[in-house]
Amino acid sequence: MMRKEKKQVEEITAMEADFAQWYTDVVRKADLVDYASVRGSMIIRPYGYAIWEHIQKELDRQIKETGHENVYLPLFIPESLLQKEKDHIEGFAPEVAWVTHGGEEKLAERLCVRPTSEVLFCEHYANIIHSYRDLPKLYNQWGNVVRWEKTTRPFLRSLEFLWQEGHTCHATDEEAGEETRRMLEVYADVCEDYLAVPVLRGRKTDKEKFAGAKFTLTIESLMHDGKALQTGTSHHLGSGFAEAFGIQYTDKQGKLQHVHQTSWGITTRLIGALIMVHGDNRGLVLPPKIAPVQVMVIPIAQHKEGVLDKAYELKEQLNKTVRAGIDASDKSPGWKFSEHEMKGVPIRIEIGPKDIEKHQAVAVRRDTGEKIFLSLDELETRIPLLLEEIQKGLLQKAKAHREEKTNIALSMDEFKAVLESNPGFIKAMWCGDRECEDQIKEETGATSRCMPFEQEVISKTCVCCGQEAEELVYWAKAY
Amino acid sequence: MMRKEKKQVEEITAMEADFAQWYTDVVRKADLVDYASVRGSMIIRPYGYAIWEHIQKELDRQIKETGHENVYLPLFIPESLLQKEKDHIEGFAPEVAWVTHGGEEKLAERLCVRPTSEVLFCEHYANIIHSYRDLPKLYNQWGNVVRWEKTTRPFLRSLEFLWQEGHTCHATDEEAGEETRRMLEVYADVCEDYLAVPVLRGRKTDKEKFAGAKFTLTIESLMHDGKALQTGTSHHLGSGFAEAFGIQYTDKQGKLQHVHQTSWGITTRLIGALIMVHGDNRGLVLPPKIAPVQVMVIPIAQHKEGVLDKAYELKEQLNKTVRAGIDASDKSPGWKFSEHEMKGVPIRIEIGPKDIEKHQAVAVRRDTGEKIFLSLDELETRIPLLLEEIQKGLLQKAKAHREEKTNIALSMDEFKAVLESNPGFIKAMWCGDRECEDQIKEETGATSRCMPFEQEVISKTCVCCGQEAEELVYWAKAY
Repeated sequence: MMRKEKKQVEEITAMEADFAQWYTDVVRKADLVDYASVRGSMIIRPYGYAIWEHIQKELDRQIKETGHENVYLPLFIPESLLQKEKDHIEGFAPEVAWVTHGGEEKLAERLCVRPTSEVLFCEHYANIIHSYRDLPKLYNQWGNVVRWEKTTRPFLRSLEFLWQEGHTCHATDEEAGEETRRMLEVYADVCEDYLAVPVLRGRKTDKEKFAGAKFTLTIESLMHDGKALQTGTSHHLGSGFAEAFGIQYTDKQGKLQHVHQTSWGITTRLIGALIMVHGDNRGLVLPPKIAPVQVMVIPIAQHKEGVLDKAYELKEQLNKTVRAGIDASDKSPGWKFSEHEMKGVPIRIEIGPKDIEKHQAVAVRRDTGEKIFLSLDELETRIPLLLEEIQKGLLQKAKAHREEKTNIALSMDEFKAVLESNPGFIKAMWCGDRECEDQIKEETGATSRCMPFEQEVISKTCVCCGQEAEELVYWAKAY
Repeated sequence: MMRKEKKQVEEITAMEADFAQWYTDVVRKADLVDYASVRGSMIIRPYGYAIWEHIQKELDRQIKETGHENVYLPLFIPESLLQKEKDHIEGFAPEVAWVTHGGEEKLAERLCVRPTSEVLFCEHYANIIHSYRDLPKLYNQWGNVVRWEKTTRPFLRSLEFLWQEGHTCHATDEEAGEETRRMLEVYADVCEDYLAVPVLRGRKTDKEKFAGAKFTLTIESLMHDGKALQTGTSHHLGSGFAEAFGIQYTDKQGKLQHVHQTSWGITTRLIGALIMVHGDNRGLVLPPKIAPVQVMVIPIAQHKEGVLDKAYELKEQLNKTVRAGIDASDKSPGWKFSEHEMKGVPIRIEIGPKDIEKHQAVAVRRDTGEKIFLSLDELETRIPLLLEEIQKGLLQKAKAHREEKTNIALSMDEFKAVLESNPGFIKAMWCGDRECEDQIKEETGATSRCMPFEQEVISKTCVCCGQEAEELVYWAKAY
């Protein structure tokens, strides 16, 4: 009963053989993405978009709960506006797309398609902030941005991506600092508690910080191949932008002051993290909390009397407490198993004539493959508990994987050896000099991922130059 | 206690004096929009965006309930792709923005910023549709689009706007026709039931239809100044795009067939309709179902003991069933009344020391100004009923206004006279010739809004040429 137009599920490359190809296979075969004729752009298909909607829903809830309001600012930025903050334009100019014509007309001034919206928010804030009573201003925006990347990969690096960008103004540097940290924690919570992706929290080095920021906080996660992924960032902008754009308020004493700002963002890249943290050689593995379908009911011998009716009944019953689906198509059960495994559905429930006779169903876990026979009476209570167990299990497994792939290096020789033998995070001391950071990248290909909030002293000297060490840094090759 | 940085609410222009200025005043003073330095673009502020989120939430629910799935396609369209369907490119070329440079590089082919995404959906559909089993494909996209408009007004016509665009493929022309009509009904329902904006349902003339469509269905509403607003459209695309893009499927008999397509969209323009249908000289009037705050509690003499506590208690109590807010700022009550009237909050509740003594509160309706004294015991049950009453009342009032401003014209002299004396919809017969349609526009400024589904014969001859009439048409000056 195979449909010839359908790709075979078996075609997927093993991740041990070629991790990049495995990733591409999963992205395509789990129906997450299709390619468009625009170089480096992606089409997010219904299944991929539904995952994004679940992430959005939870993150939006937390963004609002922490007092932020959603707004929408323009897609285009006049070139002169982008140039107002010097570091910012230097950082972004090489990777923006330029609109030069509107209809038949050549524009007097080029417009850039927003790569991020700091300067637009700053212009707006200068308009609407006047007094200490107007502070804090806590805005967030959901939208698309464009970065002219040379090498692109679906979700990880693309010409256009979807994200949210928070932009806030505060009366003091300290308040802005608290906000920067607060939003990083919101991101960490969404990653760990919803996506089951464990993250390292820390600060970026000056080299790696956001163009125009005072400092950048980051959450970093480790993929299955031992490469790191910057999963979300939160920037303390200080008052540099406020000075460039004249965002001032009158304080309680009647004195004019510049505001202190933050910005923070998380993108569709999170879907890439999901794939590369939890996926296996049968495809995607989705954490229940963000799985579009948590349980897929698959009727066995569905042509036999009563099977389909019972399967639909189970689905309805499950839908009271979980997101359940049913696959009643005319494909073979085996085909359906592979397909929903590829899509990472956390639990499948098989129900056939013999099961009905025994008043039972078979639940199969996507993460462990474990088969569980359940009486139909306990299905409604057991399945939600099983989903919780899977959610926790995925986070634990990912944490264990990260531990396994986190090593210490006290010298450059150790650094290179361990990066070769067991690629992952390398903890090594750093003197704080840009030169050492550059040299480590040049010699090993690893970049500084973050200076973790939880510092340890594993040695007194810099892994590169041997001078006095300032900070413990996590290093890794990264996406 | 007035704050000098706050604009006075009284500054608003009367709509009878200058409707366009009244609109601009409301848009600004109700904090819906701010201007950006990008010509013709708008910043949608938190209050405006919250209204959009409420519209989105309900529409998205109905779009999903009718079997559609959300996807996301790229922002950019290569010029060659846009040119594949001849009528389509002719219609859109004059109003698109062109990206010619990425980073420092000049592009080999220009990219247009999507004005609508038909061609991208077509390219994707050609990739993923093969068999009758793949049909129907029912996709929807939420996003931003750009149209290079010369004259712009917030929400009504802007360089960039937010919308949803549905794109579907069907096996037969008839199914596509049903879909076109179904989605128009979804739009009509959201407009009438949620926005309390009554709409005319009908078909556009060939002159006014979508570039590349077989026909366009439309809902049209009437603004307070007697001008019409095209509020939503649903297009039957026939198989023209499918032929241009090669979207074919194998039918049950094994024969290759072209699909039949639809597309349909609704935009942030709806917020403009809300303003101009319900607003008055004190500002916005919001229908309860989409009002971000349905009830605003305003404490009177809030410095007196117990007042603030009681006000917060009421707010919490109300929040169980409605969206309630509280204004406990240090502005005067009168100032707060004006401000929340300007923002169109459906009900305000005043509570002061005397009210507390009498165990009562005063509810004031935004739509009628009516004051209602309510015992605190009945507040929780009465307020939701009152909100329902307001919702119905707004729709009835808008319907009555439309009736009043809908006239019949049997000759061009009558047409002009009535358009002058009581501007609004004019019902007049039409022969079906483009020439008459053009002439009516030239002589009167009115355009054909739609050929209503509910046809009547009010005369046997065309209002313009006197030849045999084919259709009843609603005409109006329009936004």
